[in-house]
Amino acid sequence: MNKLLIVGTVAFDSIETPFGKAEKILGGSAPYIALSASKLGVPTSIISVVGGDFTPSYLEMLHEHQIETAGIQIVKEGKTFFWKGKYHTDLNNRDTLVTDLNTLSDFQPIVSETDKNAPFLMLGNLHPTIQMQVIEQLPKRPKLIVLDTMNYWMEHSWDELMAVLKKVDVVTINDSEARQLSGEYSLVKSAQKIQEMGVKYVVIKKGEHGALLFHKNEVFFAPALPLEEVFDPTGAGDTFAGGFTGYLARTEDISFENMKRALIFGSNLASFCVEKFGSERLQTVTEKELEERLFQFKQLTQFDIELEKS
Amino acid sequence: MNKLLIVGTVAFDSIETPFGKAEKILGGSAPYIALSASKLGVPTSIISVVGGDFTPSYLEMLHEHQIETAGIQIVKEGKTFFWKGKYHTDLNNRDTLVTDLNTLSDFQPIVSETDKNAPFLMLGNLHPTIQMQVIEQLPKRPKLIVLDTMNYWMEHSWDELMAVLKKVDVVTINDSEARQLSGEYSLVKSAQKIQEMGVKYVVIKKGEHGALLFHKNEVFFAPALPLEEVFDPTGAGDTFAGGFTGYLARTEDISFENMKRALIFGSNLASFCVEKFGSERLQTVTEKELEERLFQFKQLTQFDIELEKS
Repeated sequence: MNKLLIVGTVAFDSIETPFGKAEKILGGSAPYIALSASKLGVPTSIISVVGGDFTPSYLEMLHEHQIETAGIQIVKEGKTFFWKGKYHTDLNNRDTLVTDLNTLSDFQPIVSETDKNAPFLMLGNLHPTIQMQVIEQLPKRPKLIVLDTMNYWMEHSWDELMAVLKKVDVVTINDSEARQLSGEYSLVKSAQKIQEMGVKYVVIKKGEHGALLFHKNEVFFAPALPLEEVFDPTGAGDTFAGGFTGYLARTEDISFENMKRALIFGSNLASFCVEKFGSERLQTVTEKELEERLFQFKQLTQFDIELEKS
Repeated sequence: MNKLLIVGTVAFDSIETPFGKAEKILGGSAPYIALSASKLGVPTSIISVVGGDFTPSYLEMLHEHQIETAGIQIVKEGKTFFWKGKYHTDLNNRDTLVTDLNTLSDFQPIVSETDKNAPFLMLGNLHPTIQMQVIEQLPKRPKLIVLDTMNYWMEHSWDELMAVLKKVDVVTINDSEARQLSGEYSLVKSAQKIQEMGVKYVVIKKGEHGALLFHKNEVFFAPALPLEEVFDPTGAGDTFAGGFTGYLARTEDISFENMKRALIFGSNLASFCVEKFGSERLQTVTEKELEERLFQFKQLTQFDIELEKS
């Protein structure tokens, strides 16, 4: 079994979009990553922390998706990480209104014996020191380590981030963060500089404009599916990363050609995520729906031009 | 011969980018459209106007590219349309510093007898009344009419724009303009509304984020090639439209499947345009270079996923 081990946040999110509000729903990077991978049939296990206030039915829902939650520490006297944000009319920008780290501020990840040999590891966006602590607990290097990060760690924990980047295979990062990390405006140059930091593959997420995968001189682009309605973009990046990593775990093939397919699967899953609040749509999406949308991705991107042999 | 008739501006441009300045170089929509189509071997003819101050060597250069310029009226006592702009650091935004319409303000397009039967017509961004005057001079409807427009005409000549939109097959427009024209934020909904205005195909240009082609329920996406360096984006949209229309003229095939290929050819040509000031790079690009980059477009976008038959 190609288990995917996931380290990330589990949170309560309060979200306001132009279309409505949701209060204290399931959030954090880990549930999105895990649900996305689970939709591809990949067994996952989450390492995270919540407080005594966490909703048990959320854990049950994750269980029903074959997601192992024993690694989610429950700090009884603590409160669950809470994020509150409000999206602008265009949904491309949002204001963070509240970030209460709560139990997350003292989080010490513990990798259980059963999780220690997981061949695939996804390090969701967290303090780079926590990401490193997880890698250091593994007796054997996983076949593939994917890391997600954000601008906050570039500003506050540069050295720790540089150290953990050297230990991973793939980094997923959004376009403005890639520019900030590299100091280069061109995404091609950004990806080159980030590879020089020690990462082999760079995935740059551009939201509604799709995602780019870079490795040495190779580039691949997966568009986002043009949608009539985007309801809530929260978690789309994590869903994308979970679909990408999940597909690689399912196929046990980490070649660049297969990463192309993985990028399309990630984009496919993300296109469902944004259709409802939080992870609601991701929970209900069926294999048939994924297959139908995969057909749309082919229609959207595949063309037939014969190249002359020169 | 599938001649492409082009109506558009011919201008002097003064451009400032973060990389340098160029003074009074060849600009306007028509030269970019024509040069782009000429690189695909398509004979073109330009209908436009310039002043007595226009540089004769620019006309010679166009001639050398098999571009007919007899339809460019030279108003001896007048001055050539002049545009001056300055790009911001990210090259995605620019400030227009000067727009002197000069001879363009009294322009009356005249379609010569030899141009009247051109099977393909590209109406570059101009007053919709001028675009309509060209259509009205044609004894027989061309096989395909492509129209480009901009926000200015939506704000100042709405009724005239609506009238001409009903007469064309394809509109090319950028994303913010599509939103303005339709009143819809979603580009999928924008394209639907624009089709309801009487246009059959809607091409939405997203600059460095590529371009979308919509027709009924079909969508196709051509990315922009990720480049190490973008030097000057001036004319990229016109180059894209010229490559798109030129490819359709060359192949005499206006099916949706062929429009997919045309979109890729447009994006290919645009990727060269931005590498130097104005149309400089477009003038020198060779068939071999286009072919090599076409290979890059395939690498960038083509993937191999088998769909299960359900």
